[in-house]
Amino acid sequence: MRHDGRALDQLRPFSLEPGFIGSALGSVLVATGRTRVICTASREAKPPGWLTQGGWVTAEYAMLPGAVRPRGRREPDGRAKEIQRLIGRSLRAAIDLEKLVGPQGPVALTVDCDVIEADGGTRTAAITGGMVALALAVRALQREGVLTADPVRSLVAAVSVGVCPLPAAGAEAPMLDLAYVEDSQAVVDCNVVMLERGGLVEIQGTGERGGFDRPTLSRMLDLAESGIASLFAGQRAALAKVAEQARL
Amino acid sequence: MRHDGRALDQLRPFSLEPGFIGSALGSVLVATGRTRVICTASREAKPPGWLTQGGWVTAEYAMLPGAVRPRGRREPDGRAKEIQRLIGRSLRAAIDLEKLVGPQGPVALTVDCDVIEADGGTRTAAITGGMVALALAVRALQREGVLTADPVRSLVAAVSVGVCPLPAAGAEAPMLDLAYVEDSQAVVDCNVVMLERGGLVEIQGTGERGGFDRPTLSRMLDLAESGIASLFAGQRAALAKVAEQARL
Amino acid sequence: MRHDGRALDQLRPFSLEPGFIGSALGSVLVATGRTRVICTASREAKPPGWLTQGGWVTAEYAMLPGAVRPRGRREPDGRAKEIQRLIGRSLRAAIDLEKLVGPQGPVALTVDCDVIEADGGTRTAAITGGMVALALAVRALQREGVLTADPVRSLVAAVSVGVCPLPAAGAEAPMLDLAYVEDSQAVVDCNVVMLERGGLVEIQGTGERGGFDRPTLSRMLDLAESGIASLFAGQRAALAKVAEQARL
Amino acid sequence: MRHDGRALDQLRPFSLEPGFIGSALGSVLVATGRTRVICTASREAKPPGWLTQGGWVTAEYAMLPGAVRPRGRREPDGRAKEIQRLIGRSLRAAIDLEKLVGPQGPVALTVDCDVIEADGGTRTAAITGGMVALALAVRALQREGVLTADPVRSLVAAVSVGVCPLPAAGAEAPMLDLAYVEDSQAVVDCNVVMLERGGLVEIQGTGERGGFDRPTLSRMLDLAESGIASLFAGQRAALAKVAEQARL
Amino acid sequence: MRHDGRALDQLRPFSLEPGFIGSALGSVLVATGRTRVICTASREAKPPGWLTQGGWVTAEYAMLPGAVRPRGRREPDGRAKEIQRLIGRSLRAAIDLEKLVGPQGPVALTVDCDVIEADGGTRTAAITGGMVALALAVRALQREGVLTADPVRSLVAAVSVGVCPLPAAGAEAPMLDLAYVEDSQAVVDCNVVMLERGGLVEIQGTGERGGFDRPTLSRMLDLAESGIASLFAGQRAALAKVAEQARL
Amino acid sequence: MRHDGRALDQLRPFSLEPGFIGSALGSVLVATGRTRVICTASREAKPPGWLTQGGWVTAEYAMLPGAVRPRGRREPDGRAKEIQRLIGRSLRAAIDLEKLVGPQGPVALTVDCDVIEADGGTRTAAITGGMVALALAVRALQREGVLTADPVRSLVAAVSVGVCPLPAAGAEAPMLDLAYVEDSQAVVDCNVVMLERGGLVEIQGTGERGGFDRPTLSRMLDLAESGIASLFAGQRAALAKVAEQARL
Repeated sequence: MRHDGRALDQLRPFSLEPGFIGSALGSVLVATGRTRVICTASREAKPPGWLTQGGWVTAEYAMLPGAVRPRGRREPDGRAKEIQRLIGRSLRAAIDLEKLVGPQGPVALTVDCDVIEADGGTRTAAITGGMVALALAVRALQREGVLTADPVRSLVAAVSVGVCPLPAAGAEAPMLDLAYVEDSQAVVDCNVVMLERGGLVEIQGTGERGGFDRPTLSRMLDLAESGIASLFAGQRAALAKVAEQARL
Repeated sequence: MRHDGRALDQLRPFSLEPGFIGSALGSVLVATGRTRVICTASREAKPPGWLTQGGWVTAEYAMLPGAVRPRGRREPDGRAKEIQRLIGRSLRAAIDLEKLVGPQGPVALTVDCDVIEADGGTRTAAITGGMVALALAVRALQREGVLTADPVRSLVAAVSVGVCPLPAAGAEAPMLDLAYVEDSQAVVDCNVVMLERGGLVEIQGTGERGGFDRPTLSRMLDLAESGIASLFAGQRAALAKVAEQARL
Repeated sequence: MRHDGRALDQLRPFSLEPGFIGSALGSVLVATGRTRVICTASREAKPPGWLTQGGWVTAEYAMLPGAVRPRGRREPDGRAKEIQRLIGRSLRAAIDLEKLVGPQGPVALTVDCDVIEADGGTRTAAITGGMVALALAVRALQREGVLTADPVRSLVAAVSVGVCPLPAAGAEAPMLDLAYVEDSQAVVDCNVVMLERGGLVEIQGTGERGGFDRPTLSRMLDLAESGIASLFAGQRAALAKVAEQARL
Repeated sequence: MRHDGRALDQLRPFSLEPGFIGSALGSVLVATGRTRVICTASREAKPPGWLTQGGWVTAEYAMLPGAVRPRGRREPDGRAKEIQRLIGRSLRAAIDLEKLVGPQGPVALTVDCDVIEADGGTRTAAITGGMVALALAVRALQREGVLTADPVRSLVAAVSVGVCPLPAAGAEAPMLDLAYVEDSQAVVDCNVVMLERGGLVEIQGTGERGGFDRPTLSRMLDLAESGIASLFAGQRAALAKVAEQARL
Repeated sequence: MRHDGRALDQLRPFSLEPGFIGSALGSVLVATGRTRVICTASREAKPPGWLTQGGWVTAEYAMLPGAVRPRGRREPDGRAKEIQRLIGRSLRAAIDLEKLVGPQGPVALTVDCDVIEADGGTRTAAITGGMVALALAVRALQREGVLTADPVRSLVAAVSVGVCPLPAAGAEAPMLDLAYVEDSQAVVDCNVVMLERGGLVEIQGTGERGGFDRPTLSRMLDLAESGIASLFAGQRAALAKVAEQARL
Repeated sequence: MRHDGRALDQLRPFSLEPGFIGSALGSVLVATGRTRVICTASREAKPPGWLTQGGWVTAEYAMLPGAVRPRGRREPDGRAKEIQRLIGRSLRAAIDLEKLVGPQGPVALTVDCDVIEADGGTRTAAITGGMVALALAVRALQREGVLTADPVRSLVAAVSVGVCPLPAAGAEAPMLDLAYVEDSQAVVDCNVVMLERGGLVEIQGTGERGGFDRPTLSRMLDLAESGIASLFAGQRAALAKVAEQARL
């Protein structure tokens, strides 16, 4: 039994609250357990100067100082930079950048992922939530006529998996969706990003206290696949609900 | 009639959601109209080195990039620095810093005010909400035995007032609690901070399109006093509700 | 009696030395008591990129490290940023930006206010002196044909007022033009900026040790109005003298 | 056939030149194809302040501006930060930090990896070379009596693998040790870090143009394992040669 | 004849106004022609952490934005850093750092050189003026009992020399104390720093449009020696006058 | 006898390895004793915006952290900025910037000098090596047709000289090409840069422990001239060898 009673292959309670920031082009509050992230997708006034073909999607990731205890610092560090690069790559994998061009030219979107409460898995929650904010922004731009084609090729979602101690069992086991208390004791820690249509798009696994073998990797990927399938279902439901509300 | 149907002396819908960030020492989500700010109060591991007597309270203010449209930039600018200095001074006026010392020594608290949606009046909402987060953090430290005396001398709250065009009337009039659309056309713009016990603690008035006379200043202060009285009532109600829940 | 023998409503010795920096477009050394500020107004090679209509005036404020004891640091801090924003707003209130456009296009002026010795009231001295440097720069541009209309709508000047202890009297009293020793003990501290034609343009009042009431505010504004009237006279005299010398 | 005639499972010519920087505690010039990295391991005067137990190993990664064409910029960017975090984690996995403490206390080592010529695979070369510099520095500290135990638990080495186009075949195939021209066209890109005793320690795989499936991942890991086995042999040979020279 | 009628070996009008910043420990306004620099010498609260023996003297150099036309930028650049290193070295050559230690321990002084108007020769004026500010600060510390010995070994002063076009003569010639208009056309530019007791302490010569020969260097050094002799006389006179006033 | 057995007028072993960075436009590894510097010359994509006439050459100088012991810091400091300004000026003296313009317009070259091992004389080695990298880059641009004229007017080279203690003799003496152990004890330290055609182009002499007289300066210049003559020979030989290889 895990510290919070979950099964090894069980996600924490997961929710998506689309439109959480009313004034944003696309937005969502994503929660997985106590981890909560505000994701907003905004259109940049100008595409980046180096862009020569298609549109662009980038991401920024930050944590409010009050999201952790003891209080975090506001300045981005190397970890934040690394995470936002991962989020950006993951979201771009979901988008056909060639179609992110409309009658007025290329479109550049920035997806901001601001963690308001942190209990492990913030980067994967940011990807899963960021996808929804991005899809909502794209729809808004289609309604406004800024985009004519639909650039969303696939949903993208992410989850953490790891090998952590199971205190009751006096052993370690692979498990899905690590909370902070698990992550901080993990022997292996792995973030997995998948496309709804197309399999793995990012895998980042780290042996925190030595190496790990390929059967362990394989077991972690099984867990991740099953968890991400549920996240895709949650994303589809949230997007469908918004679409229905828009129709009414 | 104002753009949103309010009377000249009417606040926007105001709410406080204490405990919004469960892991924080003290927290609140404050909303005034569409303006929403997450306020968290955290204890610093160490008081600042220059502190020679009593404890300390400081504030940081930032706006999530997605809180405005077009998207804001993440780096703090001069405006943000100026605002957080105002918030810090206002909150310190509410606290007896000599009593912010406990058996383990002086206590330093940082109140983070992160605007998640901005529609005018973010700095005054941050002060009003920051006061609640601060009071909740102080109570928690009292429960933990870190503080023995109650350092809260008075509540502090703030509101904006201004002289703005009234399109329907073809005239300008002093009015309370400016929304962004009002603030951006204001002829005079004034932020007022008051102590529940003790009157004015900060007044910052600016003529945006030339000067203003003292009767206008006086009328704006009348409006501010009446609005802030309502905010004090809201703060007291929120704090009482939390206290009651803690007792149950 | 105040520490330096002044009456409560008495300014410190005030002087303006126009043309202090011979090579600058407009310049002045302003002194109020021991506080001295070099103000220079310079034309920027290019107006800021975001300017769409009219010209622009901005200000920078800094303190030489040797202006205070112990020595100050050279890097600008939040306080300096806040002060230069105040100076910039105050100077722009004096100028019709629409007329800051000449045959060659819009004109952008930067007024640098560098405090060489600090004894309280540096920001208000910078505004009062900056106005003179700005007016001299505008005249120079008119002579050079860069400007054809006169963009100066009104003089602007500023002074500090406050409620401070009167040691001899064992009481506190509102007083005009605080020296550092007064400012550092002030119970209320207020900076007032006025237009020669048009009344108040900025008021920033702070209760340093609790709140203050509206009659106190009113008494402080009386003092400020009377002090600023003398500063306007000093500005007019300095500008008239320069104009006369130019004629000779 | 690959662009340079290599087989799919063939490394580029690999060499290690230990002691390349004579004055450094430990150093090596590592070359894999045209990619060359100077790795030096230095002892910090003081361990980091937050260290409470054991010693510490950290890494810095940079590229000389002339290592790429067009010339790179000297300032580290997010990519460099991400890479040096990866190198640091990988090297720490090779070390028993508890044993990085000697009679004089904990020891902190910094491994600098400066790319002097870049043709793909710079981060993996930095890990493989950094391990050798680190081992040499540890030996030097043992000789000096600064360390008494041997903290090296295992060698660590790294290689890139990917799925890239094979122009001649009109197809894509998994291949080992990507040169820049391959990396820039890769469909999947994966960096693998392994411990000589203990299997995988880091795996970072990215689908650059959509997702990839688990059999592809498995094939890439086969290639990586075989390539890294050769790198371990190279590291052992270089260390043995230095040891022999020291004996003579 | 030079542009301003000076002989080749003639200094510009030179003056020192000691005590220009009344509140500073030591200060002077140095003027050479239109170049004017405020020099203040301040005692740092703490000596630098790396200091193991004796006291320390350092310098900072900056130019007010309004000192040049077009307006300069406030941020220090490489040139400013280079100049302040030169000033610091020169002033330290004048001081016996071993004697910059008093009953309370080592003393660290910072000499700030802020150029308020620039017309060539700002770095040499800063050295010559900085020496006077430093000597005045040392005397003040001796009066206060912070220092017991006199650490001033010698005066130090500096001047520029160069080879510049002489338009009237249609030729180039070595000349003393270059104004900006000369410096900007110089073929050779050389700054010379000398100790009253001890000869050359810094020489920095640059061929601006090709090389120069040793006889030219020798002629420039002759000019510099003669000019610096006059500067030493000015420094002695200024210091003597202050000493006399202190006695009265 | 010097610490390494050299005569007072003897250079350390000097070598140039042109083409050390195969992918760079021009490159060399320069070694003088244990001091080694990688110099690469690269063409900037765009000339600097302020350039109005001719091309441009600039330099950057840095030291790898592992080049010194204890380990250096990666961030450039004032010393590095000062050195790279010196290198840039020296290299520009060797070039006719008017001829650094080709059919496609002006050409901007950056010469990066990265010290990989430091034992004194790094800045002079950087100039001597940078000249070779620059000349090779210019030739490459001529071959590519980017330049049609040859902008190299002269070779430039540099060496350090100084007055240092001679322990065996119990005296100090002027000597050529200081190693670190000499430089750190030098009484006078002087860097001399000369043009093959045209004499001195930079001289920077510093009395490290008081002043020095003109005969000493003269003796140091004699030593520098003789040492630089050897460096010119080495540069010519290296360039000739590369030219010959290109012909074969």
